[in-house]
Amino acid sequence: MARQRDTINRVLEQHLQNYHSPAPQLQQAMRYALVLGGKRVRPFLTYSVGEICGASAQVLDHAAAAVECIHAYSLIHDDLPAMDDDDLRRGQATCHRAFDEATAILAGDALQTLAFELLTAIELQLDPQRQVQMLRALSQASGSRGMCGGQALDLAATARQLTEAELEQVHQLKTGALINAAVQLGVLSGSEEAQQYLDDFSQFAALLGLAFQVQDDILDVTSSTEMLGKTKGKDEAAQKSTYVTLLGLEAAQVKLTQLHQKALQALQRIPYNTQLLENFAEQLLTRDY
Amino acid sequence: MARQRDTINRVLEQHLQNYHSPAPQLQQAMRYALVLGGKRVRPFLTYSVGEICGASAQVLDHAAAAVECIHAYSLIHDDLPAMDDDDLRRGQATCHRAFDEATAILAGDALQTLAFELLTAIELQLDPQRQVQMLRALSQASGSRGMCGGQALDLAATARQLTEAELEQVHQLKTGALINAAVQLGVLSGSEEAQQYLDDFSQFAALLGLAFQVQDDILDVTSSTEMLGKTKGKDEAAQKSTYVTLLGLEAAQVKLTQLHQKALQALQRIPYNTQLLENFAEQLLTRDY
Repeated sequence: MARQRDTINRVLEQHLQNYHSPAPQLQQAMRYALVLGGKRVRPFLTYSVGEICGASAQVLDHAAAAVECIHAYSLIHDDLPAMDDDDLRRGQATCHRAFDEATAILAGDALQTLAFELLTAIELQLDPQRQVQMLRALSQASGSRGMCGGQALDLAATARQLTEAELEQVHQLKTGALINAAVQLGVLSGSEEAQQYLDDFSQFAALLGLAFQVQDDILDVTSSTEMLGKTKGKDEAAQKSTYVTLLGLEAAQVKLTQLHQKALQALQRIPYNTQLLENFAEQLLTRDY
Repeated sequence: MARQRDTINRVLEQHLQNYHSPAPQLQQAMRYALVLGGKRVRPFLTYSVGEICGASAQVLDHAAAAVECIHAYSLIHDDLPAMDDDDLRRGQATCHRAFDEATAILAGDALQTLAFELLTAIELQLDPQRQVQMLRALSQASGSRGMCGGQALDLAATARQLTEAELEQVHQLKTGALINAAVQLGVLSGSEEAQQYLDDFSQFAALLGLAFQVQDDILDVTSSTEMLGKTKGKDEAAQKSTYVTLLGLEAAQVKLTQLHQKALQALQRIPYNTQLLENFAEQLLTRDY
């Protein structure tokens, strides 16, 4: 994964150079938010799934970067004073603290655009039909029926205890949809034959995404600000519903294990070597940061 | 144009229904910003150019709405306290005043996504290659090398007198790029034959876009808040460079006339009936609001 992260960072840096803005401050803020730090969960999934599905490196470089651009933009905007009002992200000042609010808003906006622009790159060695499918998957996952919708529901839910079904919907939209898109873009970058397993990969992604969120909720209670690289205990302070407040710590840990097992089962329906994804799920769901 | 505006409003409303968000407040804020009011300059251009180029109504309904979604999102974010801090837009409370800042940020984000999602609609009766070209044109025009870049340069230029070349760059990016995209999407929606005139239409759009901005600068001085539907004299208050501060009112009016003439000349190179666009340019550049 460390090697993969280096590749991802190099590719992101290269794309930012290729799409260089005439506005220097905007360019710096985009780079700050996109290139520095991050676990790179989503691009890792795109690369791994894409390699399993026989995708070319050139297409994956665009697809993985596009997903990470959406993720980075959402973090910039989530951290804004009007939203979660966070000072720390990935152990560093959040974008609006390092620059200013206006620049942070614009950097988020422009990173969202860049995500879609990357998928329209003229030199992509890909069937245009497939290119449109990728653009559709990423936009569906990001918009008002995906990530933005989840963030809106999450904001509306503050200071109210959600049911487990409501909480699952928030997470499915807020983080699950983009994790799913990361996996879908990997499949869509791949061979014609691999397309028949799109649903199986999607199911794996949905289960992994939810497990990832349960783990996040657990870590918000059990880890430290230093380990997390972001302010710990924020959920509790904001009286947000989490799997821990809803189920208790122990039952949340049981749920995490169950989701992990189901995710592995979804992988077993795919007749390719998915060892890389199994290892990744293991690492991701036993992480302490 | 009034008939065209009704069509545009109906189509925007329909798209919002089709892409309905599970988050009610977000959906309302998107509708508030997108459907209520506006001159509809950009979708009008897409429809007009598209009809001249033999495009189908179904494709134009998506293309025109996509451009207007980008425009509406940019207005929401430009009006935010951290940006231009405006209370009035189109004679009504700005989105963050009618709702709240967090909702306004998300509504802008989700409208941007919707723009791209609309162009990926599965039912579009269009060559996927052309669909990708439309997505590319819209993303290029919107991002850090287009509209967002222009907004960033504009923010950085406050309280400093720009040269005419600098001011032109700001406007070319901040408003010109999207007006150009509106025209390009009209051509790209059209027949194979019409594609050879893409550059001529683009030149018309560039000149019209710049003329539109010069007219905007003039109106900010000569019109009233009531007529404009937004706070007048904002440019002066913010010590922003405008064509009026740079050239003086009279020379700005001469420049407007020159740009208008050149735009009409660009149209004359196109062997189609472009009367509709000539009339539109006339209306747009003699408007008093």
